[in-house]
Amino acid sequence: MQLVDETALDELALGAAVLGTGGGGDPYIGKIMSRQAIRDYGPIQMLSLDELADEDLVVPSAMMGAPTVMVEKMPSGDDVLNAFETISRYLNQPIRATMSIEAGGLNSVVPLYLAARLQIPLVDCDGMGRAFPELQMVTHTLHGLSATPMAMSDERGNTLLLETIDNLWTETFARSITIDMGATALIALYPATVAQLKECAIHGTMSRAREIGRIIMNARRQEANPVDSVRAALDGFLVFEGKVSDVERRTEGGFARGDAYMEGIHEYEGKRLRLSFQNEHLAARIDDQFIVTVPDLIAVLDAESAEPITTEGLRYGFRVAVIAFPCAAQWRTEAGIELVGPRYFGYDVDYIPVEERLGS
Amino acid sequence: MQLVDETALDELALGAAVLGTGGGGDPYIGKIMSRQAIRDYGPIQMLSLDELADEDLVVPSAMMGAPTVMVEKMPSGDDVLNAFETISRYLNQPIRATMSIEAGGLNSVVPLYLAARLQIPLVDCDGMGRAFPELQMVTHTLHGLSATPMAMSDERGNTLLLETIDNLWTETFARSITIDMGATALIALYPATVAQLKECAIHGTMSRAREIGRIIMNARRQEANPVDSVRAALDGFLVFEGKVSDVERRTEGGFARGDAYMEGIHEYEGKRLRLSFQNEHLAARIDDQFIVTVPDLIAVLDAESAEPITTEGLRYGFRVAVIAFPCAAQWRTEAGIELVGPRYFGYDVDYIPVEERLGS
Repeated sequence: MQLVDETALDELALGAAVLGTGGGGDPYIGKIMSRQAIRDYGPIQMLSLDELADEDLVVPSAMMGAPTVMVEKMPSGDDVLNAFETISRYLNQPIRATMSIEAGGLNSVVPLYLAARLQIPLVDCDGMGRAFPELQMVTHTLHGLSATPMAMSDERGNTLLLETIDNLWTETFARSITIDMGATALIALYPATVAQLKECAIHGTMSRAREIGRIIMNARRQEANPVDSVRAALDGFLVFEGKVSDVERRTEGGFARGDAYMEGIHEYEGKRLRLSFQNEHLAARIDDQFIVTVPDLIAVLDAESAEPITTEGLRYGFRVAVIAFPCAAQWRTEAGIELVGPRYFGYDVDYIPVEERLGS
Repeated sequence: MQLVDETALDELALGAAVLGTGGGGDPYIGKIMSRQAIRDYGPIQMLSLDELADEDLVVPSAMMGAPTVMVEKMPSGDDVLNAFETISRYLNQPIRATMSIEAGGLNSVVPLYLAARLQIPLVDCDGMGRAFPELQMVTHTLHGLSATPMAMSDERGNTLLLETIDNLWTETFARSITIDMGATALIALYPATVAQLKECAIHGTMSRAREIGRIIMNARRQEANPVDSVRAALDGFLVFEGKVSDVERRTEGGFARGDAYMEGIHEYEGKRLRLSFQNEHLAARIDDQFIVTVPDLIAVLDAESAEPITTEGLRYGFRVAVIAFPCAAQWRTEAGIELVGPRYFGYDVDYIPVEERLGS
């Protein structure tokens, strides 16, 4: 068992934003909410799946929508509770713990906020080992687990309960509802037992996030190179160093979509990186050649501090380092590639693991 | 208590299509479904509100969406049950009866089908005394009754439960979900007790519909003028006689919207009628002068047989009689006009009761 106090929260939120590959929401808002909840209710218990009973029920909580809007529309806190309590009443059985459905700036800390408020533990796992833009894109789907019953709520007090025939339908309905709610919604979904999560979840994501955060903070303190420290810790690769020269961005179908362009510096001088995103970074191309794609992770970090930059935070002139690192093994199966590989997102290219492309 | 057998069903469906003012769905599909259900399960009990106990719970059932699509996508029957059973489980108390939320070709008979299948009575009332395109447009709203909990289902087996802060939000979410479901959905909503319905519902709408159907059928048999018979029975007015010269139609935001144009014959020779619709007929203009608007009823009837023509059935060359008649008194209050008057639908004109405009 770990206790998540304010220091652990800062580390966790920082590291989760790296795993969030530009998405999963703005870490700043989530951190403020969770810090306040920890101050009011005390540190949060974080348990591994092995510390829970197999029959215990776990319900993830998250925020859904375009991160661009999340920045402007901060959750009230009560709306987070509202979705969770709606599903709790509907399931009509005690919920033992909550968990993060995806690593990411906001979606790693929303469940922490909930855990603090409800005085329940957070489970040290998630459903992606990173962030993805659509809600069927979790390892639960690979194991045939249903996203529903799912509850959604907004800040006004509207709630909806979904029961769908598959997780793609859940995404379809939930996306439209999210748009009607003003582009963001609070959600509780994928109820599962600990026994099911032992099979399907990505174990240890939260402690991994915390470890990444700690490494970056230590490197900054020791005046080492934080980008290099985090790259090494993740068995990752430096893809590019450069300056953001253009960002094309549109909120479309409830997503923040677009492309960012960067002009190379140092050894990348004269080269151009194109980074495509849909809430999360999906693919990086150097001079029109694919160099990394989903499901492997692409993180854009401030070149000096290794502060992860979200897709909505990318701005002209930023000096950045782009690193890439391997996704969880579950995503590299045939079913995994079908669900979250480059072709699903419309890129006419096969998935090649990042270490095959960039390893020497 | 009345028993609705196959003959009564034919009369009711015909008369309800007149009250449906061009909307409320295609009567043919609903009639086939209900006839089969009556054959399989026997005639349906139709009770007045006074024949039920005040505390009895009543849940209306209906189809939502663009009638244009309903014609091509016939409900399976099981999807009608699905929405109703979802709300029944959620309410967790016995539902004594069902009712029609609106008079209309399909939405008068969907509850009959359900009543036959579930062997429960149909209540002789509705929430409009006619049909309207949006689901907050019921007399329940005027009395502060909530549309939710509301259940929605599609033919695939997806179901959703809504709990909203007002009935306009219900419409917003339900409309998006309907579009995702393929432009039509089966719904169960506005749960209410008999005591509440005594206050808010339009009483006797179903027996009125049946009476209208009977009058038309009798007139046809007696070779009288069915258009004139139904007009007289409704205290209505002949607005126009003519030939359909043009129909502009678009499915937009989940609605069938458009305008139909008619060239006058007989005493209307040389005049032009413009009829605007959003699922239902909303306003009629002769030579650009408003002559009838919502909430009063506009029915387009075949000039010979008085067969009501739905907005999606209007075709070039049809010879039609357009009649108009007064809406229920509840719609003529200030709150009623605000909810369903011409300005809500974007017409810059005050509501003037049809008998003031056309009465002599």
